[in-house]
Amino acid sequence: MYRIGFDVGGTSIKVGAVDNNMQIAAGRSIAFPKGETYEEVVSLMAKVVNELAWEMKLASKDFKSIGIATAGSIDAKNGIIINAHNLGFHNVPMIDEIRKHFPGMPVFLSNDADAAALAELRGGAFRGKKTAVLLTLGTGVGGGIILDGRIFKGGLGHGNELGHMIIQHGGPVCTCGNKGCIESLCTATWIIQQGRKAIVEYPISLIHEKADGDINRVTAKVVIDSAKEGDAIALDIFNTYVDTLSSAITSVVALLDPETVALGGGVSLAGDFLFEPLRKLVKQKSFFKILHEIVPAKFGNKAGIIGASLLAESREALRYD
Amino acid sequence: MYRIGFDVGGTSIKVGAVDNNMQIAAGRSIAFPKGETYEEVVSLMAKVVNELAWEMKLASKDFKSIGIATAGSIDAKNGIIINAHNLGFHNVPMIDEIRKHFPGMPVFLSNDADAAALAELRGGAFRGKKTAVLLTLGTGVGGGIILDGRIFKGGLGHGNELGHMIIQHGGPVCTCGNKGCIESLCTATWIIQQGRKAIVEYPISLIHEKADGDINRVTAKVVIDSAKEGDAIALDIFNTYVDTLSSAITSVVALLDPETVALGGGVSLAGDFLFEPLRKLVKQKSFFKILHEIVPAKFGNKAGIIGASLLAESREALRYD
Repeated sequence: MYRIGFDVGGTSIKVGAVDNNMQIAAGRSIAFPKGETYEEVVSLMAKVVNELAWEMKLASKDFKSIGIATAGSIDAKNGIIINAHNLGFHNVPMIDEIRKHFPGMPVFLSNDADAAALAELRGGAFRGKKTAVLLTLGTGVGGGIILDGRIFKGGLGHGNELGHMIIQHGGPVCTCGNKGCIESLCTATWIIQQGRKAIVEYPISLIHEKADGDINRVTAKVVIDSAKEGDAIALDIFNTYVDTLSSAITSVVALLDPETVALGGGVSLAGDFLFEPLRKLVKQKSFFKILHEIVPAKFGNKAGIIGASLLAESREALRYD
Repeated sequence: MYRIGFDVGGTSIKVGAVDNNMQIAAGRSIAFPKGETYEEVVSLMAKVVNELAWEMKLASKDFKSIGIATAGSIDAKNGIIINAHNLGFHNVPMIDEIRKHFPGMPVFLSNDADAAALAELRGGAFRGKKTAVLLTLGTGVGGGIILDGRIFKGGLGHGNELGHMIIQHGGPVCTCGNKGCIESLCTATWIIQQGRKAIVEYPISLIHEKADGDINRVTAKVVIDSAKEGDAIALDIFNTYVDTLSSAITSVVALLDPETVALGGGVSLAGDFLFEPLRKLVKQKSFFKILHEIVPAKFGNKAGIIGASLLAESREALRYD
């Protein structure tokens, strides 16, 4: 039995057919079609579901459910994406639109970081934990919070906006319009911007070489790989990033004193090169002066897909009722 | 029946004999004796308890319990103040020391902001609330968090250190050694420092007049009162303070989406002059774009005393077991 999980982000739409053991049997990642209407985006999503069915020698109606994890704030009950700045989606009736393509299909919607935290809670880094925080470091920064062993949906039910906690009062302008949010400083987007600047300013860096001097080929991975190989300019960008991220995690730890902090999203794939200096800095900055566990999300950048596929069976965990 | 509540802060030790209706029947506020040993500080505290008993025509043994709310991190179970930088207390066996003066007396210890939040939960701004946050703005900044209708003691039991959330990465050095903590920017201490600078730099300000040109007579109240009267220099300090504080509250709101944020401590006594611009700024900065309730703590700067007196009956609420 397979359930479809979508992870819709500002850079890509990832989708998988997930089995009962939280394994992705078949999957795709496609670029997010920027500037298209939501109806066109959903048509594209439906097309990919049909492709997966074909690949698996199934009909799309054989999938038990479709779960959608998306950036931004959502109204899960009514299936509406309220605001997702990185997608250009505002008051989008996501569930209704998907159902036009798959009549009768159970469809569920969740914030992407909540979905990822759900996957980690069911079978990953948060298994058996009561208090834990997931930060997803991608185009934006999402936060999934576990309190008392359940997904915390916010005191007033708005969810959390961890990415819009302020860590540099008066700092750079964020996608939300405010200044110095975690999202303005701790994203893959920030690393890419710095990498692009570096290409223009320092034509002999390794970043320049790896991207063939093309700013459009600068990814976070290009910058991080250059730093790993010892490129001074890339290292400078990376070290600044880690320092800022450590301040963000220190803030979360100061408030929640969590058992575990897990990092997901593209940047988390940097591995020990990221986690070792990060742990050192957070321990140093934290008032508690003990090390709160900081680990990679088990499902890495698949957590959104897997968590989305679990939504159908997780109404209670998500307190959707 | 009366219970003693102490609120021990870096500037003053406040104490009250609190009745069953959370009213302070008799109270004192004395300057915190900086530089003294903890034994001497506790002797002074015992002396004040005896004075209160005398004033109330009671014997000190007639008090049902003594509760102590203190700045810093504590080990409530063992009655130890682990670290309270503003008091110069490190690993101080507070409960044992108090008991030397009052053998057989039930004595309880709590973080000051937790105690204040407890008072608000039992009979103040948090009555009936499930999710709420108290910020105490004094010498330092404390945080009391209510989750699920109970005092949240941290995921690992260390309590919270809201004052050491970072809101200005790379900002001014905090008492904890880190940079840009809420406590380095949102305290009465910060206002006083700025007021003192102003006296030296601008000898014609209202701050200068109210303090008779004496930097030792500059209090947060002097600066705020000068701002209320329209003094440009004082207003500049105050507006900067409110802007920074609004960023701090925005961060907390982004993570917890609380029903209510209450402000206690000396600065909160500024009233609407503080709360009106603060609410406007938080609404503007918050991702949610709705107004999370921001109110003065009902018990103002008495919340610590009253909360401390309630500790004896609140083991369950504080999850001390």
